[in-house]
Amino acid sequence: MNLVQTTQRWWERSDLRYDNGHLMLAGQQIEALSRAAGKPSFFYSGARVVENIRRLNAALKTARVQGRVLYAMKANRYAPLLTYMKATGLCGIDACSPNEMQLARQCGFEGREISYTNTSVSAQDIQSLALNPDVRINLDSLSAIRRLATASPGRTIGIRVNPGLGVSYGENELLSYSGAKTTKFGIYRDAFPEALALATSLGLKVRGIHFHTGCGYLNTQLPAWRAIVKECCWFLDQIKDPMWVNLGGGLGVPHVENDKPLDLDAWSAIVRDAFAGRGLEVFVEPGDYIVKDAGLLALEVNTVERKRDITFVGVSGGWNLAMEPTFYKLPCEPVVTRFHGDPAIVFHPSNLKTVSIAGHINEALDIWASNAALPPIAEGDILAFLNAGGYASAMASNHCMRGDFAEHLIL
Amino acid sequence: MNLVQTTQRWWERSDLRYDNGHLMLAGQQIEALSRAAGKPSFFYSGARVVENIRRLNAALKTARVQGRVLYAMKANRYAPLLTYMKATGLCGIDACSPNEMQLARQCGFEGREISYTNTSVSAQDIQSLALNPDVRINLDSLSAIRRLATASPGRTIGIRVNPGLGVSYGENELLSYSGAKTTKFGIYRDAFPEALALATSLGLKVRGIHFHTGCGYLNTQLPAWRAIVKECCWFLDQIKDPMWVNLGGGLGVPHVENDKPLDLDAWSAIVRDAFAGRGLEVFVEPGDYIVKDAGLLALEVNTVERKRDITFVGVSGGWNLAMEPTFYKLPCEPVVTRFHGDPAIVFHPSNLKTVSIAGHINEALDIWASNAALPPIAEGDILAFLNAGGYASAMASNHCMRGDFAEHLIL
Repeated sequence: MNLVQTTQRWWERSDLRYDNGHLMLAGQQIEALSRAAGKPSFFYSGARVVENIRRLNAALKTARVQGRVLYAMKANRYAPLLTYMKATGLCGIDACSPNEMQLARQCGFEGREISYTNTSVSAQDIQSLALNPDVRINLDSLSAIRRLATASPGRTIGIRVNPGLGVSYGENELLSYSGAKTTKFGIYRDAFPEALALATSLGLKVRGIHFHTGCGYLNTQLPAWRAIVKECCWFLDQIKDPMWVNLGGGLGVPHVENDKPLDLDAWSAIVRDAFAGRGLEVFVEPGDYIVKDAGLLALEVNTVERKRDITFVGVSGGWNLAMEPTFYKLPCEPVVTRFHGDPAIVFHPSNLKTVSIAGHINEALDIWASNAALPPIAEGDILAFLNAGGYASAMASNHCMRGDFAEHLIL
Repeated sequence: MNLVQTTQRWWERSDLRYDNGHLMLAGQQIEALSRAAGKPSFFYSGARVVENIRRLNAALKTARVQGRVLYAMKANRYAPLLTYMKATGLCGIDACSPNEMQLARQCGFEGREISYTNTSVSAQDIQSLALNPDVRINLDSLSAIRRLATASPGRTIGIRVNPGLGVSYGENELLSYSGAKTTKFGIYRDAFPEALALATSLGLKVRGIHFHTGCGYLNTQLPAWRAIVKECCWFLDQIKDPMWVNLGGGLGVPHVENDKPLDLDAWSAIVRDAFAGRGLEVFVEPGDYIVKDAGLLALEVNTVERKRDITFVGVSGGWNLAMEPTFYKLPCEPVVTRFHGDPAIVFHPSNLKTVSIAGHINEALDIWASNAALPPIAEGDILAFLNAGGYASAMASNHCMRGDFAEHLIL
């Protein structure tokens, strides 16, 4: 047992694991690819993306609903990845801005494969939606309903609702889209009859309900999510001839060793209990669930140096390349991309060193990980940060003009 | 007295104020400029930038030291602004990456006007520094000293030190560059003799001390800053024939009504007491102090709608255009760009409405301000967010593909 514990890391799986001391993603040596790129590099496994979508499609099938995955492209809009998804035919797109909608089309998706939902809708947004009549849209304010009715008369729409309940990874307040505290998202129960009446009076056809109520939820949040789904059925029941329900995204992935993967059977049962046999299309809009664990970020170690009580490992990229560890308290597990010798020895706790991994941005908070236990690291090594497939490159900035990076889809 | 309180906002000054109901920056109507730009727009007052630099130059003169302001371009690298600063001849540049160093040169600065300091220095960084021998550099690790000595033999350098003391706006932990907790920055006292000996043994000439110990400090932090300066003199005293000391940046500006502007006389006295008569060049590297209050971000209101207990004002830009309010807890005061009628009435507390100002990013934390008290706002209005001249556009991302904006230097 002890041997197993020390030779297999919690995140290892068939397409992401060590082979002869080399970290492999989708059959490729990450260290070699990273050195060839010569700069901070994201690597994405196409196969893992497909596997994640298929697993979710299967769960929708188990739920006995006519379901469709709409990939939330805000998580990662790397164009080759979008086109690869389109080529598989396994999913549509969730877009949240006109530019996203355009990019999805440029990458091969048709308008009818795109669902569009955003908040604080501008006049330009409305105009863009009017020019894309085959895109399915969900509106979340009376103001947007009013304006769209003029710009796109007679359109069929969904309404994004806010059930006043929310779920998020580790009950993280930063990721709370709905809940006790009033948020900007969606139409609440108290205003829903007015929204419906307004839309109808202006000639729009309300045929769908959309709710997105959290981020990164795992098994401990599933009972809360069941309550959310139930609450959202109230909204659905107010609509005449509903055609679809959109469950939003927020399905999470493990971030640390103690996280268990989301139990899709349990998830599926919730969907089935609420929606099976209702003749609805059921959409789900995951971002992280599809791409996060399919990607990693590889950075080169440039400095290993003790400062007072801490050994800092300086790397060639900062928080501006992947904000989640710094600002959202969502860790990206750091791992070595190569080691020499017997993993049972290399990864034995007594041989690990505790280090802080620091970026090169001139801010104290630019720390990738504190108290990371890793095999001894030397300057020139390549480190990989897991779970960097979602909300990393998509949110990158050029802060300190340290924004240069490469992306690499492994197929 | 009551009349004065309600007709003059705390942030108004000669070049940023209401004139006949129009918000004016550097003599220009922000609403008109913003509508002409047709997208989220930053406006910077060249005159205010110059005023801020001059004020600091005067303080250095008062301190009776040969001083020079080095603008920390990471705060705002808008190229026209950099060239404008160069044209005034009032300051040099603090760069923290090779790309920044290159951009400064491209905008007209000479190498000798640039000071370079970064942490987690890569091999490419070292190579770039070797190719720019006239740039003044400060190193903050033994590792970098070792490598630079090979790449740029005989170079004169400064050492960035960490006094183990820090200051920041409102004692904000996020902005703590040094202090009780060990950070990645600088060489601590315990390692300084070794660093000096190493540099000397490798043929480098250590002639300067650099310290940067906080962010946004105001008057309440000045006693702590005095202690920091004193501690840094210990480092200076270890160096043979020191030529310069670099005080870093971190000088703050008021963010809310109760903040008083930094007392430069008091600041100057600290500098004088520590460094006057020592024959040193004294550098100071402010970013925010020079550009923050010279800039604002103008966004259009697209939605005004009550949701449960909160009135949300939706605007045409999100946190990705200016991160500080969301992630650093540094507010950007929202103000109307136009009003009609007598300001004493318009801004009378009884006529203000409490609103939350929300961006269009699909994240609950994308809120510009909660509980902002403003005159009644309508869809189509332009709002301005003050203190958006620093660490806003420079850190912007294209998250959700909502990254389009314009910048505008008013001269």
